[in-house]
Amino acid sequence: MIHQDRELHEECGVFGVVGHQDAAQICYYGLHSLQHRGQEAAGICCECNGKMNIYKGEGLVTEVFDQDKLKNLNGNVAIGHVRYSTAGGGGLSNVQPFVFRTMEGSMSICHNGNLVNANILKQELEDQGSIFSSTSDTEVLGHLIKRQEGHMIDRICASLDKLDGAFAFLVMLEGRIYAARDKYGLRPLSIGILSNGAYVFASETCALDVIGAKFVRDVEPGEIVRVKDGKLLSKTYTKDSLQDKICAMEYIYFSRPDSNLDGINVHTTRKLAGKQLYYENPIEADVVIGVPDSSISAAIGYAEASGIPYEMGLVKNKYVGRTFIQPTQEMREQGVRMKLSAVSSIVSGKKVVMIDDSIVRGTTSKRIVRHLKDAGAKEVHVRIASPAIKFPCFYGVDTSTIEELISNKMSVDELCEYIEADSLAFISEEGLHKSIHFDHQKCGLCMSCFNGNYVTNLYDSFDKANKFEK
Amino acid sequence: MIHQDRELHEECGVFGVVGHQDAAQICYYGLHSLQHRGQEAAGICCECNGKMNIYKGEGLVTEVFDQDKLKNLNGNVAIGHVRYSTAGGGGLSNVQPFVFRTMEGSMSICHNGNLVNANILKQELEDQGSIFSSTSDTEVLGHLIKRQEGHMIDRICASLDKLDGAFAFLVMLEGRIYAARDKYGLRPLSIGILSNGAYVFASETCALDVIGAKFVRDVEPGEIVRVKDGKLLSKTYTKDSLQDKICAMEYIYFSRPDSNLDGINVHTTRKLAGKQLYYENPIEADVVIGVPDSSISAAIGYAEASGIPYEMGLVKNKYVGRTFIQPTQEMREQGVRMKLSAVSSIVSGKKVVMIDDSIVRGTTSKRIVRHLKDAGAKEVHVRIASPAIKFPCFYGVDTSTIEELISNKMSVDELCEYIEADSLAFISEEGLHKSIHFDHQKCGLCMSCFNGNYVTNLYDSFDKANKFEK
Amino acid sequence: MIHQDRELHEECGVFGVVGHQDAAQICYYGLHSLQHRGQEAAGICCECNGKMNIYKGEGLVTEVFDQDKLKNLNGNVAIGHVRYSTAGGGGLSNVQPFVFRTMEGSMSICHNGNLVNANILKQELEDQGSIFSSTSDTEVLGHLIKRQEGHMIDRICASLDKLDGAFAFLVMLEGRIYAARDKYGLRPLSIGILSNGAYVFASETCALDVIGAKFVRDVEPGEIVRVKDGKLLSKTYTKDSLQDKICAMEYIYFSRPDSNLDGINVHTTRKLAGKQLYYENPIEADVVIGVPDSSISAAIGYAEASGIPYEMGLVKNKYVGRTFIQPTQEMREQGVRMKLSAVSSIVSGKKVVMIDDSIVRGTTSKRIVRHLKDAGAKEVHVRIASPAIKFPCFYGVDTSTIEELISNKMSVDELCEYIEADSLAFISEEGLHKSIHFDHQKCGLCMSCFNGNYVTNLYDSFDKANKFEK
Amino acid sequence: MIHQDRELHEECGVFGVVGHQDAAQICYYGLHSLQHRGQEAAGICCECNGKMNIYKGEGLVTEVFDQDKLKNLNGNVAIGHVRYSTAGGGGLSNVQPFVFRTMEGSMSICHNGNLVNANILKQELEDQGSIFSSTSDTEVLGHLIKRQEGHMIDRICASLDKLDGAFAFLVMLEGRIYAARDKYGLRPLSIGILSNGAYVFASETCALDVIGAKFVRDVEPGEIVRVKDGKLLSKTYTKDSLQDKICAMEYIYFSRPDSNLDGINVHTTRKLAGKQLYYENPIEADVVIGVPDSSISAAIGYAEASGIPYEMGLVKNKYVGRTFIQPTQEMREQGVRMKLSAVSSIVSGKKVVMIDDSIVRGTTSKRIVRHLKDAGAKEVHVRIASPAIKFPCFYGVDTSTIEELISNKMSVDELCEYIEADSLAFISEEGLHKSIHFDHQKCGLCMSCFNGNYVTNLYDSFDKANKFEK
Repeated sequence: MIHQDRELHEECGVFGVVGHQDAAQICYYGLHSLQHRGQEAAGICCECNGKMNIYKGEGLVTEVFDQDKLKNLNGNVAIGHVRYSTAGGGGLSNVQPFVFRTMEGSMSICHNGNLVNANILKQELEDQGSIFSSTSDTEVLGHLIKRQEGHMIDRICASLDKLDGAFAFLVMLEGRIYAARDKYGLRPLSIGILSNGAYVFASETCALDVIGAKFVRDVEPGEIVRVKDGKLLSKTYTKDSLQDKICAMEYIYFSRPDSNLDGINVHTTRKLAGKQLYYENPIEADVVIGVPDSSISAAIGYAEASGIPYEMGLVKNKYVGRTFIQPTQEMREQGVRMKLSAVSSIVSGKKVVMIDDSIVRGTTSKRIVRHLKDAGAKEVHVRIASPAIKFPCFYGVDTSTIEELISNKMSVDELCEYIEADSLAFISEEGLHKSIHFDHQKCGLCMSCFNGNYVTNLYDSFDKANKFEK
Repeated sequence: MIHQDRELHEECGVFGVVGHQDAAQICYYGLHSLQHRGQEAAGICCECNGKMNIYKGEGLVTEVFDQDKLKNLNGNVAIGHVRYSTAGGGGLSNVQPFVFRTMEGSMSICHNGNLVNANILKQELEDQGSIFSSTSDTEVLGHLIKRQEGHMIDRICASLDKLDGAFAFLVMLEGRIYAARDKYGLRPLSIGILSNGAYVFASETCALDVIGAKFVRDVEPGEIVRVKDGKLLSKTYTKDSLQDKICAMEYIYFSRPDSNLDGINVHTTRKLAGKQLYYENPIEADVVIGVPDSSISAAIGYAEASGIPYEMGLVKNKYVGRTFIQPTQEMREQGVRMKLSAVSSIVSGKKVVMIDDSIVRGTTSKRIVRHLKDAGAKEVHVRIASPAIKFPCFYGVDTSTIEELISNKMSVDELCEYIEADSLAFISEEGLHKSIHFDHQKCGLCMSCFNGNYVTNLYDSFDKANKFEK
Repeated sequence: MIHQDRELHEECGVFGVVGHQDAAQICYYGLHSLQHRGQEAAGICCECNGKMNIYKGEGLVTEVFDQDKLKNLNGNVAIGHVRYSTAGGGGLSNVQPFVFRTMEGSMSICHNGNLVNANILKQELEDQGSIFSSTSDTEVLGHLIKRQEGHMIDRICASLDKLDGAFAFLVMLEGRIYAARDKYGLRPLSIGILSNGAYVFASETCALDVIGAKFVRDVEPGEIVRVKDGKLLSKTYTKDSLQDKICAMEYIYFSRPDSNLDGINVHTTRKLAGKQLYYENPIEADVVIGVPDSSISAAIGYAEASGIPYEMGLVKNKYVGRTFIQPTQEMREQGVRMKLSAVSSIVSGKKVVMIDDSIVRGTTSKRIVRHLKDAGAKEVHVRIASPAIKFPCFYGVDTSTIEELISNKMSVDELCEYIEADSLAFISEEGLHKSIHFDHQKCGLCMSCFNGNYVTNLYDSFDKANKFEK
Repeated sequence: MIHQDRELHEECGVFGVVGHQDAAQICYYGLHSLQHRGQEAAGICCECNGKMNIYKGEGLVTEVFDQDKLKNLNGNVAIGHVRYSTAGGGGLSNVQPFVFRTMEGSMSICHNGNLVNANILKQELEDQGSIFSSTSDTEVLGHLIKRQEGHMIDRICASLDKLDGAFAFLVMLEGRIYAARDKYGLRPLSIGILSNGAYVFASETCALDVIGAKFVRDVEPGEIVRVKDGKLLSKTYTKDSLQDKICAMEYIYFSRPDSNLDGINVHTTRKLAGKQLYYENPIEADVVIGVPDSSISAAIGYAEASGIPYEMGLVKNKYVGRTFIQPTQEMREQGVRMKLSAVSSIVSGKKVVMIDDSIVRGTTSKRIVRHLKDAGAKEVHVRIASPAIKFPCFYGVDTSTIEELISNKMSVDELCEYIEADSLAFISEEGLHKSIHFDHQKCGLCMSCFNGNYVTNLYDSFDKANKFEK
């Protein structure tokens, strides 16, 4: 596993393009730049004259697709998906996009996020005779759309309005793509335009940059957009009140530093969080180091604010891929450590500030602190660029169960002792908010994993989280 | 492609086992012995405490599964499938078994055959809100079962009774397998028992032999069986009249020579057909040769009846697999011919009787005759162990469109000239019937591809055959 | 392993083509048709303006090469090799062809056979400073050539004359191929010509047929040929006396039935051996069956001579490839048997004559007899189309050690009892000789594995056989 | 290709371990951490009771080896190699380690570097009858050792003393490893010790860290070491004068930032070079950015020295692997750019200082400058952390031909204009020297690619560079 050490997992990334003769290829490059959002599976579905050409498989985008497979994906409309996990027992049956076939035509859907009322909706659908071919929430939308009446846009809107939770949906049918975002804007979704006028939709703007698309704007909470005659049509699919509650962890952890979410650059927020972290929790030290890759920006911010030099005290092996043979327990005991190397010549004899983006179960932090001390660090002061995670996420982030969240069980002092650090501090919620919304453009963030203030009703999600077929 | 030269294609083979701790492995060996029925995809689904563990992929059984994948398929009930083709645009989404998930539990289904009223049923289901995730007929059964009421056995029976066409279905749920055969017995399905008392179901008896299972009996037309408390329970799922109309081409072409279908050995029927072919169409010649592999038995029969020696005048390269690089047109013109070699030292200067099992488009026969003449054969007399194929099959055999069936367009004399043979004769329908039912056990055979007397209503099948998404 | 049940193993097949723009492709098809001579590794080397383009790997020809790899092999001269085994500890380093590089140019060599004086020659070469990069005998020839003086043809001839043992060598350098056969003609080597005038060399004539080449003649024992200005030049490389002693097992076991060896068709000799076997060892029985694939011809011969019908009483699964998951011991005990199925409906209650080509360790025969009896055979009479193998082969056949040869330890009666047959008989040496040289063209055969009359001095081969690094 | 954009290429990395039961596994992890030194091929050779167990293949360490392959490599002594390129026409035949087999035993060798007198030595060896099986220089050492007399250590020393050029050699035989470095110390080679007392040798110290080995010391120029009875034995193999002339590009470009070369940390030298670059070539600007990954340290140094904030203005996609489908020309014209993204929100409207480690052909720099300007950068000032490369390297770095080195053809001003930068400056030789030898421990560096002062005679290397078979 590529990211086995990461303790938080985004569920997915989505990408779509409408009106380009090489739609599948554009999709390939777009998904490739969203690879950090999901490494376990990938799929692309292309529509050509009503026919859905689809290919999906387990592995990285570059592992799933080759030249031949891509060439077989004809059509000038395409949607694609990268998936973090194929857990759920269904293997490939849970890999997206999904295709739904009816006598009147086919529809393809992919989705980033998590629905909190999926079970309620599934039960209702089953009571009317529906059966499901996957354990994925995404299938629910297909069934709902089928059961509505009227124009397709109205059927989709009515269906979306029934959903509660976090989502960025792409629905492809009849040569069109419908792109929608949940009422709270929990998951990001951006719109871009290519030089030939083709519109693209992507979970992050880095995917727009990579394919040479110009950023147009973000899809708004509760909005559904589609392209008609080369123009972007917009509609609000619900009468519920809308909120700006994008997931804070998208900034601090999941997204690529070069992406802008709701107009705000990720690297910049991380660097500001690093500075804020210093202002809130200053320490005198010899060097600042960051845990690669996601904490580098924050570490540089901390260094700039403090005047303490930033150094590369931890180096990551970038060749750890799927086929890497894990060290046996015996090897590990002999000191084999593959992913992160602590650089002795940099930390030896030094007072080190170690910046990380988050602590989930605490085991990773504990191990890194030990590595640094083994490499000769005199003191290790841990500074975390997010508040303590005390509550599980139901919006598409896999944070393990509530019992595994160490900040739920330990005070900061206890945790400091547990990870064997010389001091430990988290950024405050206010500090994080200020780092992200430094320019006051937006005012909302979902911080439920820090404070338990969930932005939606949770229905049976707590139960489902525990009973779900794994 | 492994069998690219074959002009007829069976759609599938099915296998199931209930009550064995190594169910997935048993299934692997069973499917492996049914590999000749479908080389394009394979899948196994195992049930373990209500959870469906499934793996499927494109390629041969040995390519799709490895040790690790097999080990992950826990459970003591399993069904599996080999598929001839992934055509239909859906790629892996059409590979079986299918899994249907509901809040009350999961169900897995696989199927050999073809339903003639699938479109009518699909339309009815859609009108009630169903959507489909594949283009396969098999999904229809899952939807029907979901919409029935009462005990599971009654729901399945009521659903099967709605189906028209050819099928051998395996339905797995709640730790049980239900095995059913269509009302006409068009597709074969046999029952066996392992030494530990576990029951197995297989498209052909060769799969029973290979896993060391004892043959119990065949599933009867219109019958559904299941195992309860170690005993076989049987039920007729329909009040319609039942027929014995097993597909004649199963004997002459599709099945393995060591299989028995409805109690009759395949090799034996082929050899008898070869003898009958001689009695009906004798010729004086120097050698009898068969087109490998399926026509060898008939050729030996012809040789025995005629007293003309059987020789190996055509040799097939057995290493032509999926990754074989096809000769370019240029190479082919230079004489590169990979699959069949005509043996000059055997046929040169000889009057040759060439036995083949069937003629579909005529191009293969023409090519083989030319090979033999290039290798020095003085005369080539072609004898075909099946009657002329003049009508398309709607029961699970891919015979191309009616326009491509050369016997639909040419008389025997014209065809003889077209394939450049010195004489050509087909076995008569009566002769074939006699060869298969030599022991009078059974009295029916589906010969619709020879005479157009279809055993079912065809509904919209003719249209569907032409319009179907390929 | 594909042929794990075979108890005899040919070491290799060679193929070469000179003067064709698609030399590598021609080579690919040629090797593919020689695949039965070696399934463990394959390689092709092409010369283009003095540069050696080579690719080799473990696996079948179709597994080692793909379109891209083949395209990279530029040049209009090519030699290739299929290898039975990569044993010897060197892995890929023992896969042929070998390339030898010097400042004056490069040379590529491949080889079928085994040298009996390799160790002596290696020691002499080492004493002069040579080192070896493989454990293969083939390298010896390269070193010898390097150390001769004069014209290249003279250097090669002088080197070949130093070799003792069995070989068919192809040496490629300076745009030419030199093809040579040992002084006894132990290993076969044929010459063909393509329609464009390009000459080809192949271990068996089936490779000529497959690429559309016309058979020209066989290379003679002690002869070296090369093509100059489109003409075949021939030379005898030795003053030693020459013999016609082609390996008898090439006819009875290794070669493809459609090949002609020294002008004699393999299938024909096998069928004659089957007939002879009947004349020498008649038995009254109900059916004759052959062990597929190599014993089918002999079985048909036996059936024709005896008037007993030939039936397909044993069926082989043709899909057992490299990635096949072997049944566990437990599975095997439960009766899982993948490679050969005994057909109950054919043998049950019958007196069966089972024809096989050879008995080496006896375990396979024992197992097949048991299968047949389990399937209901009343009596099983085993007839072997070769004499009893009592001596190891030092000429390129891997017959295991002398201790493992069961006919070395048991009389025919004891062996009959051991394999649990009702009777057992081998063809006589005279009978085999007559079957092969039915037309009196040639008069010699190497039968050393039957009678211990080795055609060469053995030097240290007995020792080497036991001490050789495996 | 993973590193297709890199314009400089190190040839290899070597790793060895002596006296550990899991030698092959240790080697695997060691090589994995040296992967940045060569991504095209990898090999491991293990000695077990005189038998060489070897496996090698094309691709990354994780692609070449799997669990099974590693398990087959028995023995408690092992050497391994990663290789930058399989160029040379020999494919796998050039992949190291090499094994040389003689009647007295086997020897395995691997090598990082390049010999300048290889052709002279090869010619001498050939005149004595040697032939070569690869185009690699490494084979020369094997031949030389074979032709010496006396104790093995003396034979190896005498052979090494004949070599001129850059090298780190590992020679394994008789259960021992001999590790040697060239007389100038051009290529690095370090010694470490595991907790069980096993010694390891590695091109870089990062490989010691990763396997939990303690750094012992570097092998000295002209030194050969081996382990006997758990102790390190050292010998100087030459009477020539020795120099400290390690390759400057090892610091600035090739090595991992966490490695120490001759006791000096790579990241630290890079950061100092960045600072020095500022002192020599200051500029007022808004942001400093580095070209990932190798220029990040220098960029941070420049930022610290200048007080200009360091930002992540260029982001690299870390998932670009071997199977990545390259954009077509058409795609590229539409703006698809996969490897580096310029971050508009960071550079737009800004005066940017862009730090890179080197300029070879200039095309990469030109493209990055254009990306930054396309992303809105107002000005781009390029600062290079190495002096201008004007001369080819003959010591194991593939710098292309002299004609392709743009600094050989253009002045700094011309080059600035060519890459469309607003200003361009290189660090001075003195500045670089000072950055690396900041602590005055060592006094020599090979800077021949900057100033043409080659540390060795070049023999025919200039010619060879042009005539070498590619």
